[in-house]
Amino acid sequence: MKSKVIVTFKPGVLDPQGRAIQQLLAQHGYSQIKDVRVGKLIEFELDGVDSAQARTLLAEVSEQVLANPIIETFRIETE
Amino acid sequence: MKSKVIVTFKPGVLDPQGRAIQQLLAQHGYSQIKDVRVGKLIEFELDGVDSAQARTLLAEVSEQVLANPIIETFRIETE
Repeated sequence: MKSKVIVTFKPGVLDPQGRAIQQLLAQHGYSQIKDVRVGKLIEFELDGVDSAQARTLLAEVSEQVLANPIIETFRIETE
Repeated sequence: MKSKVIVTFKPGVLDPQGRAIQQLLAQHGYSQIKDVRVGKLIEFELDGVDSAQARTLLAEVSEQVLANPIIETFRIETE
């Protein structure tokens, strides 16, 4: 089965990459773009697990490897 | 309004970061994880545009700045 983990900065944490994109686009005339935040989307192909098991497994993996719990938060989407 | 751009590698394009995560997790006993692909999620706060205008604007920005059209593909999600 396919599942996704989305890792984003917690609200209030400075996102330098997002800020850089926003400033670059503002310089190119895209003044409608007020804020940009960049996150990671990690897609998984899992074997022999159901949706609940996938969630447990990916929560474990996200906490340990994919996200920095001090500054980042994650959510899991299973099919 | 809030909108998102999701940038992922095209199918068939090698994703070294995803491969590294998959191998690391396999070494830690997560043999259920068969494949990992890493993409970018870029969240925008837009001012003074409707949903259709947001899509046009973000398609332009994605093609020019956010995605490498040779190896990456993108999709836009508006509220």
